[in-house]
Amino acid sequence: MNLAEFIDARREKHLTELKEFLRIPSVSAKSEHKPDVERAAKWVADNLRAAGFKSAEIIPTAMHPLVYAESLEAPGKPTILFYGHYDVQPAEPLDLWTSPAFEPEARNGNLYGRGTADDKGQVHIHLKALQALHESNGKFGINIKVLIEGEEEVGSVSLWDFVQKNKEKLKADALVVSDTSMLGKGVPSITYGLRGLNYYQIELTGPERDLHSGVYGGAVPNPLTVLAELFAKLHDNNFHITVPGFYEKVAKLSKAERKALNALPWNKKAFQTAVGAPGYCGEKGFSIVEQLWTRPTLELNGIWGGYIGEGAKTVIPSKAYAKFSTRLVPNQDPRKIAVQVEKHIRKLLPKTVKCKFEVLSTGKPWAAPFQAPIFKKAQTALEKGFGKKAVFIREGGSIPFVTQMYDTFKVPCVLIGFGLPDENAHAPDEHIYLENYFSGIKAIAHFYADLAIL
Amino acid sequence: MNLAEFIDARREKHLTELKEFLRIPSVSAKSEHKPDVERAAKWVADNLRAAGFKSAEIIPTAMHPLVYAESLEAPGKPTILFYGHYDVQPAEPLDLWTSPAFEPEARNGNLYGRGTADDKGQVHIHLKALQALHESNGKFGINIKVLIEGEEEVGSVSLWDFVQKNKEKLKADALVVSDTSMLGKGVPSITYGLRGLNYYQIELTGPERDLHSGVYGGAVPNPLTVLAELFAKLHDNNFHITVPGFYEKVAKLSKAERKALNALPWNKKAFQTAVGAPGYCGEKGFSIVEQLWTRPTLELNGIWGGYIGEGAKTVIPSKAYAKFSTRLVPNQDPRKIAVQVEKHIRKLLPKTVKCKFEVLSTGKPWAAPFQAPIFKKAQTALEKGFGKKAVFIREGGSIPFVTQMYDTFKVPCVLIGFGLPDENAHAPDEHIYLENYFSGIKAIAHFYADLAIL
Repeated sequence: MNLAEFIDARREKHLTELKEFLRIPSVSAKSEHKPDVERAAKWVADNLRAAGFKSAEIIPTAMHPLVYAESLEAPGKPTILFYGHYDVQPAEPLDLWTSPAFEPEARNGNLYGRGTADDKGQVHIHLKALQALHESNGKFGINIKVLIEGEEEVGSVSLWDFVQKNKEKLKADALVVSDTSMLGKGVPSITYGLRGLNYYQIELTGPERDLHSGVYGGAVPNPLTVLAELFAKLHDNNFHITVPGFYEKVAKLSKAERKALNALPWNKKAFQTAVGAPGYCGEKGFSIVEQLWTRPTLELNGIWGGYIGEGAKTVIPSKAYAKFSTRLVPNQDPRKIAVQVEKHIRKLLPKTVKCKFEVLSTGKPWAAPFQAPIFKKAQTALEKGFGKKAVFIREGGSIPFVTQMYDTFKVPCVLIGFGLPDENAHAPDEHIYLENYFSGIKAIAHFYADLAIL
Repeated sequence: MNLAEFIDARREKHLTELKEFLRIPSVSAKSEHKPDVERAAKWVADNLRAAGFKSAEIIPTAMHPLVYAESLEAPGKPTILFYGHYDVQPAEPLDLWTSPAFEPEARNGNLYGRGTADDKGQVHIHLKALQALHESNGKFGINIKVLIEGEEEVGSVSLWDFVQKNKEKLKADALVVSDTSMLGKGVPSITYGLRGLNYYQIELTGPERDLHSGVYGGAVPNPLTVLAELFAKLHDNNFHITVPGFYEKVAKLSKAERKALNALPWNKKAFQTAVGAPGYCGEKGFSIVEQLWTRPTLELNGIWGGYIGEGAKTVIPSKAYAKFSTRLVPNQDPRKIAVQVEKHIRKLLPKTVKCKFEVLSTGKPWAAPFQAPIFKKAQTALEKGFGKKAVFIREGGSIPFVTQMYDTFKVPCVLIGFGLPDENAHAPDEHIYLENYFSGIKAIAHFYADLAIL
């Protein structure tokens, strides 16, 4: 019996076990679920031992425990650090779930339940792949470190603290993460690029106090209008961002990469159906895929000021606020961009308002050298698991952990996602396509097995 | 003893009585004060009888009672309709009052308490002026109708219903109102112009649902940005409003009126101190007084959309909202302006968003022919009461009742205000300058007395 057959023979067993994992409501954001979070950590540790790890630690933290296991019995073979998380998003609003969030149910080829896609289902794929390898060979064949956290949905503070204090312990030749999505159904995908994220907030103050718009209107600065005028100036008619120097360091895509990205089976119609806008717009000179994955953006995320209740209030407010963010691409430097953005905004603003400018966070973009051997091995393993050619994709979002790990260890990060873009990761009726779950176990088992072949 | 001496002899008595009126917490917005509102109506009716009216009606309405009294015993003499209100704004926040809102206290030459300026103090001026006339002459000398409502602070719905049904009863040669402010201390003022007010709300929808700004940012319309770009286009660099036709009907001021307005003892420094903005702006080619009183405006009153809580959320929202208003001047037609504004906004918006445009209210501008004899009589009477020359001013705000009454009866409306701009009409520590109250009684007594002299 080969590895794939070995795994296929255990489909029911795997599914039953995953459902057990999913039934634990390990909602990290809610203090009433603290016992559940701890139960989930114990479940993961137990499962790691069942998978063939001699021991698995539950590491207490200031908030939720980390689970860590390692097997370093393959001298001369690569060492892989696998990262995942066992905590989940809150399930609310509960009444929008077709079946209860923590009572997993298979329907229409999907498994529904909180954590199916994000990230318990994907963690379980790795646990079962490792177990299959160990059971069929008596060993993993590579050196493997597994780090599963319980705070991913609430900011990963304890994780990051642990990583900083255990750099030697966590050292590896590559980081493997399964917490992303495939390009689409039947398209196994490796994500090799993420955008960075700077998040800003500004507060504009015009008059010292709210004023009556009748008594004062016409002769005083209105900070709401100034805010509108400011943000109208941050893009030109081609949707280019007007901040001087903003694009200066942007890495130009090679012709080959650009061609490859545009040749992907990316479905524009499905994208537009998902968005449902009356029309579309984006930076001139780039395809939508390029706009989403390879071009930086500046987006307003929230604006407020003045009277926002029901009916009418004739006020000229003292203050106007905006939250906005820049998505960054290689090789933009987040700190430098933050300085450029602030400088440009201060230059654009009239002297009639004061401006408080805050950078709430900065985050680097990331792109992996996907021509490196480990990426080719991942691609081959995915083809073995899915029977379909795997593609290299980028994502428009940001995963701070990946860029931080890359900065810390300077090793390749291989992002192999088994979710699908429409699986409601943070919404009601979260699900995972079961064939992706089953094929994922086979693919990951092949991946780890192939890494043993130098 | 002449009229002024007669009134001066009663200063203490008047003040004691006003305090009694102010102690009734007739807050029309709060249902728990309904008995107080009714008590205040009764107080007004009793006081009208004491002033010399043979009878005074308390007229029940769907909400708060109206008080009405009339004396029509001067055939051949003018008939005046005096309007005021006995209800007051809520006193909250209570902890910001130096002395309790409903325990009137004299300090520094002012009388503090809710309703002192808006409008009980000013109503009392008329009641005591009429009483003085009646007591010293045994008659009012003119025909007088008094209508005091209890819903001014909550929209005057019952008043307006009553007016529509009692046009014949309320017919008069002029309407007199004291619910405005003087230009400044020591400057008795007659207001002859008010701006009209149209209030609008728009809702822009881009994507059908809120989107992740990482996953979707760069290729979808952001309604917040579209909103900003829209409002940036509604003024040009000279603060002119860009709506085609907006200024078309604006009445041009005569040279004389413009000169008179700019010659007023209007204090720019005090204005800027009250506003406290880092800088000032307004429509090019007009003085601040002209901008405030004689020019139309378009002001944002509130904007909102996206994430407005603490910290960061990477969202591209589906919707963006704005509340805004246009202040209008003679002879702009509010309904026509609303159509022009909507048309222009729809023209400016890109096809990437849907727009819901609502006109929440429209209101006409108003300006009186202040050269008419009754205005000259008011000016002379104010000079008799205050010992200072009275001026003709306009206001930037809107008083819907005045424009509605003018539209209904087409008679001169004489707005004689005894408040000062900084008397906190709707705020804690509301007060009236006592000398204005005492001088006001004398001025109004002279005004009514002089109207009897044809």
